[in-house]
This record gives sequence, C-alpha cells and structure tokens, in this order.
Amino acid sequence: MENGSKIKWGFRGNEELTTASGITIRGILNMIMDNLDATDKRPVIPLGHGDPSVFPCFRTTYIAEDAMVDALLSAKFNSYAPTVGILPARRCIAEHLSRDLPYKLSPDDVYLTIGGAQAIEVALTVLARPGANILLPRPGYPYYEARAAFSNLQVRHFDLLPEKGWEVDLDAVEALADENTVAMVIINPGNPCGNVFTYQHLEKVAGTARKLGILVIADEVYDHLAFGVNPFVPMGVFGSIAPVLTVGSISKRWIVPGWRLGWLVTSDPNGILKETKIVECIKGCLNISSDPATFIQGAVPRILEQTKEDFFMKIINILRQTSGICYDKIKEIPCITCPHKPEGSMFAMVKLNVSLLEDINDDLDFCTKLAKEESVIVLPGVAVGLKNWLRITFAIEPSSLEDGLGRIKSFYQRHSKQQ
Amino acid sequence: MENGSKIKWGFRGNEELTTASGITIRGILNMIMDNLDATDKRPVIPLGHGDPSVFPCFRTTYIAEDAMVDALLSAKFNSYAPTVGILPARRCIAEHLSRDLPYKLSPDDVYLTIGGAQAIEVALTVLARPGANILLPRPGYPYYEARAAFSNLQVRHFDLLPEKGWEVDLDAVEALADENTVAMVIINPGNPCGNVFTYQHLEKVAGTARKLGILVIADEVYDHLAFGVNPFVPMGVFGSIAPVLTVGSISKRWIVPGWRLGWLVTSDPNGILKETKIVECIKGCLNISSDPATFIQGAVPRILEQTKEDFFMKIINILRQTSGICYDKIKEIPCITCPHKPEGSMFAMVKLNVSLLEDINDDLDFCTKLAKEESVIVLPGVAVGLKNWLRITFAIEPSSLEDGLGRIKSFYQRHSKQQ
Ligand SMILES: Cc1ncc(COP(=O)(O)O)c(C=O)c1O
Ligand SMILES: Cc1ncc(COP(=O)(O)O)c(C=O)c1O
Repeated sequence: MENGSKIKWGFRGNEELTTASGITIRGILNMIMDNLDATDKRPVIPLGHGDPSVFPCFRTTYIAEDAMVDALLSAKFNSYAPTVGILPARRCIAEHLSRDLPYKLSPDDVYLTIGGAQAIEVALTVLARPGANILLPRPGYPYYEARAAFSNLQVRHFDLLPEKGWEVDLDAVEALADENTVAMVIINPGNPCGNVFTYQHLEKVAGTARKLGILVIADEVYDHLAFGVNPFVPMGVFGSIAPVLTVGSISKRWIVPGWRLGWLVTSDPNGILKETKIVECIKGCLNISSDPATFIQGAVPRILEQTKEDFFMKIINILRQTSGICYDKIKEIPCITCPHKPEGSMFAMVKLNVSLLEDINDDLDFCTKLAKEESVIVLPGVAVGLKNWLRITFAIEPSSLEDGLGRIKSFYQRHSKQQ
Repeated sequence: MENGSKIKWGFRGNEELTTASGITIRGILNMIMDNLDATDKRPVIPLGHGDPSVFPCFRTTYIAEDAMVDALLSAKFNSYAPTVGILPARRCIAEHLSRDLPYKLSPDDVYLTIGGAQAIEVALTVLARPGANILLPRPGYPYYEARAAFSNLQVRHFDLLPEKGWEVDLDAVEALADENTVAMVIINPGNPCGNVFTYQHLEKVAGTARKLGILVIADEVYDHLAFGVNPFVPMGVFGSIAPVLTVGSISKRWIVPGWRLGWLVTSDPNGILKETKIVECIKGCLNISSDPATFIQGAVPRILEQTKEDFFMKIINILRQTSGICYDKIKEIPCITCPHKPEGSMFAMVKLNVSLLEDINDDLDFCTKLAKEESVIVLPGVAVGLKNWLRITFAIEPSSLEDGLGRIKSFYQRHSKQQ
C-alpha cells in the first residue's frame, strides 16, 4: 500500500491550542529545564514550582492518606459520581468554608472540581460570551490567560502595586472596565507575589466590583497559608457586596496537588449568580466535563474534618522560616530586590536589575543561564506577566533553599559588571 | 446596604453550555429517576447505566486496589504530573496495546486522560476549526454530540444497521463526507448496541476513511469485553491505512469508572498525525486541561501488568450469562424486540413497538412511566439518537436483571392494548 502521506488528509490540529497553551508555567519551566547541564553533579534546586510535595518535611498528613486508603478499599466509591460531586463532600466543604464567613454556605453552593485548575476552567468557560472581557492581575497566574484565550474571553490587566504590598490598583480596575466586563480575578494569598490582602482592601475590591456590576473570582487555593501580620480573609466575607466565585483546593494546604481535588463555590448570599444563570451554566459545564476521582471525593469529609491543627502549624512554621531565609538571602544578592516580604503562599516576587549584569539580557536569559550553570530553576517574571522580575519559591527543604540562593549569589558574582 | 439585585450586573451565564449539556446520558437518566415512586418498597433496578461497579459480583480485582494503595502510600505520586502523563504509565499502556497490533506503539503515542471521556474531549477540541464537521454513529454515545456542540464542530450522523449486526453504513459515510469532514467515530465494542465489529468490517472502515482523507476516532473503552463469536480487534490494526485516535480507559474492563483513568493514543505508524499537527495540538490541549490524579497514573503499570486472566474471565462470563438472560427475557415481552444478540460491552439495543401499548406515546414516556410504576430505570433510545428504541444494560447482578426484566413484562401486560 502506498504511504499515507501521499493522500490529501482533510484534518489539521487547531493551532489556537498551541498558542493558548504557550503561556503556562508548566510549559515555561519545561523550557528552562531543557537547559540543565547533565554533567553538573550537584542536585537540581527547584525554586520554580508551586509543589513542595516531594520534600519529606512537606509530606502530607497520615490522616489524609488513611482517609484515601479507606475510601478506596471500601469499594463504595468505584462508580461514577454525580456531575456536581458527591453530597457528603459538598456538605463538608460548605461547612468548612462557612466557619470563616458571616453566613452559611449550602452544599448546593459547592461544586467539586479536578483541583483549583478545573474550577478556573469552569468559571471562565461559564462567563465567556462574544465581546466579553475579564480583568486579570499583573503579575498573575497564567492559567487564567490560557483559559481566557481558549474561551475567546478578552483579557485586560490591572497592576498589583509592589510599593503597596501588591495591593490591587483599584483605580486601574475602574478605568479598564466597560459594559462588557464580566469579572475581575484576585488571588489571595498571592501567587506570584506572596502577599496577603487585608480585610479592608478586600472590602474595597468588593465595593469596586459592585460599582462596576461585575463578579469577583477569588482564587484561594493558598487559603490559610498566611504567616505574616495579615490573617487570611476569604473574599466570600464580602459576598453580599458583590457575588464571588471562590476557587479552592486541597492541593496546597494539604500539599497533595497530585490528588486533583478542588472546588468552585458560589459565595453569594443574595442569589445574584442564580438570577444571572451562572449557577445553571456551571452545572451545564460540569455536565460535559471530567470529574475528580470518586474515592477522592469520598475521602474529603475525613480529610477536612480530621486533619489536626499541628499539621497545619508545622507547614506554616516551615513556610515562615523559609520565607525568612529567602528574604534575607536575597538581600545579599545585589541584582535582585524583594519589594515586599512574603507573608503567604509559597512565593517571593523579586525585581531583577539586569544593568548590574554583564551578559544577561533579561529575566528569561537569567533563568536559562542560571539553570545551565548552577542547576537552579527559577521562574522568569515574564511567565507571570512582569518582565525582568523573578518568582522564587521558598516552599522547599530549608537546606536546599539556602543552597539554591547561595548558587544564585555565585551566579551573580560571576556575571556582575566590573566597575 | 441595598440588596444586590437592584444593581445592573454585567455578567450572564453562557447558555450554550446548558444546551450542549442537555443531551448527556447522565442528564436524561437523572430526569427519568426524578419519576421514581418513593412509596414503592422494592429495590430500584438500574438498567440504564454503564457502571456495574456497585454490584458485588463486579467488584474490581484486589490487584488493582493494592496497586492504588501502594502508589498512594509511597508518597511518590503526591505531586503534579507532566501534562501528557507520567512515563512509566505511558510506556506500559503502549506495551499493553501493542500486543494486539502489527506494529509497536511508543510511549509518546500515549496521552493519559481523565477517563475515556477526557480523551473524547481532547480529540474533538483538537479537530474543531471553523466549518469542520465530524461523522458520528447513530445510535451513539451522546457525549460526542455534547462536546462537538461545545466546540462548534458540526455533526453529521451515519446509521448503524441493526439488520447487519449494527455495522456502519459505509455508503452513508461516503455520502455524508465533504472536504470539511475531519473524522468519523466508531465505538467498538458498541455502546449502545452491544455489537463487536469484525476484522473485515474494520478494514473497510479504514479504507473508507482513507478514501475520504479523514481520521478514525476509535472509542474502545469497552475493549476486550467481547463474549460472542467476533473477537475484539483494535482499530489501530489498520492505522497504516488511515490514522487512528484510540480512546481507551480502565473504567469498563477493570470496572472502576470512578477512578478516572483513560488514554488517547495515536495509532498511526505513518506519522500523519504529526504532519498534520494533531500531535502538537493534543499536547497544547492537555497543557491547558486537568490531569488524572498522579498516584492513579503511578498505579497503572501494576494494574495493567499484574491483573490475572481469571479476573477478566470472571467478568466476561458474567456478561455472557447476563446478556443471554437479557436476550431471552426480552423475547417474552412483545412490545420490545432485540434485532441482534449482544456480543460485547454492557448493553442491548431493543426496538419499542408503541402500537402494542395503550397509553404510551414514545420511548421517553415508556421509560418515565416504567420508572414510576416499576422502579426500573431504562435509557430511552432518544438519548442515543434512536427514538422509540431502548438501551437496556445487562451489566448487573443476574438476579436483579431477571427481576427488572420481569417487571418490564408486567408493565407491558398492564399497558398492552386489548385486542
Ligand atoms: C493561583 C493558583 N490558582 C490555581 C492553581 C491550581 O490549583 P490546583 O493545583 O488545585 O489545580 C494554582 C496552582 O499552582 C495556583 O497557583
Ligand atoms: C462509548 C463510551 N465512550 C467513552 C466513555 C467514557 O469512558 P470513561 O468512563 O472512562 O470516561 C463511555 C462511558 O460510559 C462510553 O460508554
């Protein structure tokens, strides 16, 4: 038989997908890791990721593991789950989140998703319609840009202000919005900035959203990972000012991102999201989407109810310690500066001064050469929307973090401009 | 503060989602189950589903459960997985599938997905472009219609021919295709028809696809669940005639649909899918999609390599037995006829003769009243594209199946027209 290539095949991949996916963190980190030097016998220090689960000190609690094993071996959760998730898990998440809210969520407010990522996917899919636009933070989490591109939702960026502890530039939000704006996104605790918004600032965000008639997507996948002065306040507290879609997950707080369990929650005591058919469309969207594994849903009640405070404290204490190490060591490296000491999540955002360096063009060049010469992986700011910044993860074993920052210092010294 | 409803909110759910999701089996079964009579003390007999995992005789093998527990407790799989899936799982699926092929698949041909469902989602997303159309079987599996609607991929239906053992009407395929046709879908073993295509017929399907310059999406989530005369032959056998995207899953053969692990495989020894950028776009699509839980990926090698033949034999034997019961009992119910004895998957497709019934309008009416009066759930044919047919699941405990079919018989007797 002749070779198939001589036939005129009538299909082609939809290349919009390649474009939309070009801007994920995963994609950019892979690109940078391609530069690692296999002859360097030192361990690779990964300061680019948001996933500390491989480090022994960040191992999840045995409570969560036991809950999973029991759910699995019960054979009660081998079947398909309802499209919105199983009721005991929804109920328990509603109760869990309600503890920090001035009103009670119902299980019907909770939709189980495949990590926080699918919650983002659903939220953006539901809001997309011809001409609509969404306001995203800069720097931000590029999965929003990728999903918006996929759904033909136009993106407009507002700045987070480093000199104000990475608060939202609310004047910019007002200036950007028009009658086609449907929502604004905030990420709190912040990725990539490691900040935690105050109660007062969140209240202002809600007021702005109300004024503009838009909803707030509150990405709280790092919820409760706060170790500075500001306590974590869920955006849902202000759900009666403007409706909130909360994105949550067990990935970060329980350090099990590979388990793929998250939620999308309507924090909306006035029922606006029902009136505007958002609720109905969330269900429609989930009906044609994949579900989180059923036994993971089955384990959720025990994971949420039985995890002990000392596990959370241990994790918070490590993060407080490593964020401190990170902040202090950065001060010893003249080409990078951290405008705001991290107080939440797993990241510090630092400004790169390329003018102090001999042969480094920009952040991407910095990260590429750093990977090659020092086997240290750092995320270039361009991946999160800020050129010539870097995002450094401190959620890593303390000794490795010191090692990694030490190598960045050597890298600086080797590349610094001679006076 | 004034009530939020007085504000003019500028967002609305995208109602295309509600439309696209209206045609899922899950949705229609839920609608029918709403008619169940709570005062009927008999157990509900579910003959509408494709998920026998709740029945003790269909419990999965301990090998699979052990593999999962070990993967979970190893704590090696708590982290994010690569976007295409972890290599050991891809390698093992490639080897597993290659055993039935005249060429060897590489791990790079295998993409891990969240069940077969996400494999379908990815395939259709990748193929969608303005104006494109896809050829789907009637009757079929409505998730294809739902995902095509979501992706604005135009759908054209070809018939499966009951009088020819539900073979594809290949003349119709040729008549339907034009220069905008990108692919045709076959489901083998068949859902909803319970048929298994012969080697010769699959070869003709490939020939037709080649002639039309389209690819074949081969949905083989029921692979190896064949208990009649025709052995299961994977479509990939003919991948050198026309490129094949194979959809697979552990959901059905291992009876663990809740675990959500499947695959999309490029069965394409001539590399056409690479040339036409399908491969690149699959990666792009997965890059902005959710992943199956990492430890489930980690368990795949042991599940695939160590499951014993006797587990598969046990399941096949039950299905052979229950399909026989189903076929025989249906003969005793004059208003339904089964044109082709099921020889694979979990379903029989039967024709409903409403003219023999007093007060039943159509298949949906039949199923609704059957649920209400007899607590038996059956899927109306309209859900799979054939009005006035029914899809009956025989993948259920034999005694329950007999009970259910007995109740359908009583229902018939009560509603039959008096001569
Ligand atoms: C800001 C933000 N949102 C959402 C996610 C996705 O969460 P998950 O891993 O639960 O899907 C991440 C993951 O890194 C994140 O950083
Ligand atoms: C024909 C067909 N394809 C795909 C699927 C989805 O498979 P999975 O449950 O592995 O997602 C099903 C499930 O019933 C099916 O019947």
